[in-house]
Amino acid sequence: MRVIGIDPGLRNLGWGVIDVAGARISHVANGICHSDAGDGELAARLLRLHRELTEVMLRYAPEAAAVEHTFVNKDAVATLKLGQARGIALLVPAQAGLVVGEYAPNAVKKTVVGVGHAAKAQVDHMVRLHLPGVTIAGPDAADALAIAICHAHHLQSAGRLQDALRRAAG
Amino acid sequence: MRVIGIDPGLRNLGWGVIDVAGARISHVANGICHSDAGDGELAARLLRLHRELTEVMLRYAPEAAAVEHTFVNKDAVATLKLGQARGIALLVPAQAGLVVGEYAPNAVKKTVVGVGHAAKAQVDHMVRLHLPGVTIAGPDAADALAIAICHAHHLQSAGRLQDALRRAAG
Repeated sequence: MRVIGIDPGLRNLGWGVIDVAGARISHVANGICHSDAGDGELAARLLRLHRELTEVMLRYAPEAAAVEHTFVNKDAVATLKLGQARGIALLVPAQAGLVVGEYAPNAVKKTVVGVGHAAKAQVDHMVRLHLPGVTIAGPDAADALAIAICHAHHLQSAGRLQDALRRAAG
Repeated sequence: MRVIGIDPGLRNLGWGVIDVAGARISHVANGICHSDAGDGELAARLLRLHRELTEVMLRYAPEAAAVEHTFVNKDAVATLKLGQARGIALLVPAQAGLVVGEYAPNAVKKTVVGVGHAAKAQVDHMVRLHLPGVTIAGPDAADALAIAICHAHHLQSAGRLQDALRRAAG
């Protein structure tokens, strides 16, 4: 199964695609969709993010998707900006017919590193351990790969639970 | 010229379309795009808003668009939710090739009522005065019509300024 993870942001929207076969995961691609003031007004920036992320979806055709569920508490302006980018990050996989998982940053860290309050460098390190030889486009792409790994893990756990229930019933 | 105003919200996203010919404005249509928990996860709700608002754009083909620029300071969760809906509200007209204007609620009230701190009922009253005989789908649709009126007014002022500069130069 192919999984995309997305770390939303208005300036840098990270994405990472992995393949999952049983307990084995492997890297497919990762990158960052950009938008800045040079792209024009806010709507034009969101349009650019939507186009770039749609191209990623078409090129890699993931079958499952997850988006980080962050709350910025810095200020209302920053939270509104993040929310707008997050709206695009959720819309694009939904337009491709996928159910979109959402994970809080602590849940991602707990799955990938083993503790909920891991530092960013630890997450980056564990992503590289999970995906040997990977070249990562930047911190937002590393976070996106971590989200994809977290989602793959949860989908597998859910699958194993369903198998066990089926065996118990059969 | 045909103008659409949009009042974003995750549950109720109001829209209003007006025609502008010189100083005359007339009502075309207004309504509310809905999404609720029954539509499924957040991404599915945003997908529904995107589909419904895209249908409105295709049906009425506005040539100009504006979205209310609200800050909810209640809490970060509410602000993030609004931001996500606002991302869709900005994206849809941008996908139709329109430049999207943004107005703070006080700017809308100042244009439509004459004062920046007008009550909601006053805005509703003035919208009905501007658009005699209009049937309004709900408070969010009334706000959306107010945003459209505000945008029409600003576009006309900008047009008059350009005409004056052209005459002064010519």
